[in-house]
Order: sequence, then structure tokens, then C-alpha cells
Amino acid sequence: MDNIVRRELWEEWRAEAFKRFKEDILIGYADEDIVDLIEEVFRSPHCFTTSSCSGRITAIDAPYPWLREGSEVLFKKHSPMTPDELATLINTPVLTRLWIVVSGPILHVVTDSVDEALKLLKTMRAEGFKHSGVISMSSSGVVVEVISGVWLSLLIRDRNALLIKTSSLTHLNNLINQALGDAKKRLARLKKLFFEKRVCWD
Amino acid sequence: MDNIVRRELWEEWRAEAFKRFKEDILIGYADEDIVDLIEEVFRSPHCFTTSSCSGRITAIDAPYPWLREGSEVLFKKHSPMTPDELATLINTPVLTRLWIVVSGPILHVVTDSVDEALKLLKTMRAEGFKHSGVISMSSSGVVVEVISGVWLSLLIRDRNALLIKTSSLTHLNNLINQALGDAKKRLARLKKLFFEKRVCWD
Repeated sequence: MDNIVRRELWEEWRAEAFKRFKEDILIGYADEDIVDLIEEVFRSPHCFTTSSCSGRITAIDAPYPWLREGSEVLFKKHSPMTPDELATLINTPVLTRLWIVVSGPILHVVTDSVDEALKLLKTMRAEGFKHSGVISMSSSGVVVEVISGVWLSLLIRDRNALLIKTSSLTHLNNLINQALGDAKKRLARLKKLFFEKRVCWD
Repeated sequence: MDNIVRRELWEEWRAEAFKRFKEDILIGYADEDIVDLIEEVFRSPHCFTTSSCSGRITAIDAPYPWLREGSEVLFKKHSPMTPDELATLINTPVLTRLWIVVSGPILHVVTDSVDEALKLLKTMRAEGFKHSGVISMSSSGVVVEVISGVWLSLLIRDRNALLIKTSSLTHLNNLINQALGDAKKRLARLKKLFFEKRVCWD
């Protein structure tokens, strides 16, 4: 397929994205589980990343976990949740509903051609990142969202009513951390694809 | 952008998909909330659909709701769940975990050009279907997955242990049906886009 991406615009975007990534590391904003992967993607000749997550646990106060408006983030962590953190959280008063969300890794990869994007997409969907798709295309680059199906939304509290049995808290805590463990396994698979299988290198 | 889609191959695929859709209606397999939308998409000059869901409630026995292997579907309905259905469900013995999943509408649209796919994608992402993406491209067509963020996974039971308070069942039932209601609102928005805003028509 003819390439719609203009190399100089792609390189400009790449330089900007790299600068922002380095700034995020400096201010401690970077998600450390994924730093090595992002650096590896930037090393490749055909791809860079603009946005990523290594897999995380969040808690939100929202009518539904898919709403952004009228929702508030109460907790965010890229590593396992401790029993104390969970105990504090379930006693936090909420305006609407308290949800604990566990989500898998996400990577926005900007490729330098449509063909490269399609190749990446095909690999990723075959390797279990089956919700991946091309989310935009322009002369600056083709953006592939790499994402797995790992996503849990646990409803804990509805206004004042706690919906989970208090006797189930340890159980719940283990489940949340196991789900995060599964998210991190997907991250490891992503790293393998980029580091060993050299995705984006040919 | 140059078009990679060969019209005759696209039309061949379109005819096959239409035949399958009509068969699904005949055998009562079609999801009736979305039949009118699918017919409208088939009427348009640049698009057809291969796969769709109007929004639904499912219950599955699986370690995690994102796993297909080792998972069993126990319940599936495209309309609200009754209190009796919920009561029966929560007492169903499971091998691993019982999850109730509420998911929003999904539409796989095959366009006759890359430009048409990008136009559709842009509209859909702007209209709240923000997880939409191009999932494949070939000389037969460009496939856009139209999907919103509406997705809930409620954990009900872990092996023998019921995690939800039995006093919360009415509450839970309402919540599931409200979430399905939100899913159906997204479906109404999709219909408006295709019927009134004439997406895929120019």
C-alpha cells in the first residue's frame, strides 16, 4: 500500500514524544514496570509510543466505571494492593458507587507506514491482544492501540451500602492481586514480542 | 489515500454476509434489538456488517471474564434480567468463578475504502464509541470495530463462596438492568448516527 506517512513529520512527532517520556521519568511520573519496553520501542526504526500503562489497579467513585464525567479516582497503583489499602478504601465514603478496576497493559504505538501498522496489528491480535486496533492515521503516523481483554470492574459499595461481605475481604484482595498478576503476565508477553521477536524491526 | 479494496471482492463478501444475516433471522438467532440497524447499514453504499451485538447480560463460569478457554456461558440475554433469573443464577454451582457481565453494543463494519473507514472511525470515536478501531484491512474490505466502553464484570461467587450479600440482590438486579439500559442508550445513539446522520452514505 502507498504510504501516507511523511517521514519528517513522523520523526518530528517521535522527537516530541521522546522528550515527554524523558520528562515523565525525571518527575517520577513514569510507570516503572514499562520503562524498558518503551525505550526498546523507541530504539526500533519504524515505531514509537505516545502513551502506555503496564497494568494497574484503580478505585473510582462513579455511577459506572466507563464514565469519565462525574467520576473521581480515589486510588491508583501499578503494583499489588495491600490488605490495609483495601480496608481503608472500602470504608471511604463515596458520592455514587465505589468500583475497583484492574486493567491490563496498554500501548499506543505510532508506526511510520500503514503496512507496518497492519503487520503490528496482526501480530498483536494473534498473540492475545485481541482488542487492538488502528485508532488514527495521518501524515504524521499511524496509531495502533495495543490492548488485551484484561479488565475487571468490581463493585464494592453503592452510596452507603457495602455490597461485598466483610468476611470476603481477604478473598477479594487476593483476587485483585491475582488479576493484576495476569495483567503483568500480558506485559511480559509484550516485552518478549518487542525484545525477542523484534516486532517493529523489519 | 489510494484504495486497497477491490470493489468486486467487497461486494462478494457483502453478499455472503447478507445471506448469513438473513439466515440468522430465519432460525431466530438474530439479536432483534439491532436488526433494523443492520438492515440500514446494508442499505448504505459503502458499508456492511459482519457481526453485531445490541448490548447484553451474560453469566460465565471462568477464572476471569476475559478468558475463553476453560470458561462456560451459563446465561445470555439481550433484555433485562428478572429477579427470578438472578436468584436461580446465584445458586448455580460453578467450577471456578461466577461473573455477570454487562456489555454495550458492538458492530463490525466493513467499508469499501480506507478513507471511508477512517471517516467512520473518527465519527464513532467522537460520538463516545471511544474503543473503536480498524481491526483488519485487505482487498476485500476494511473492518472497523465500533465499540463503547460500556462493560461491567460483577463477581458473584468464587467456587462455593457467595461474595455478594444476599440482602443486596435486589440492589444488584437493578444495577445490572440499569447498566443494560445504558448499553441500549448507546445502541440508540448508534442508530441515530446511521439513520439520521447518514454515516456511511457519502
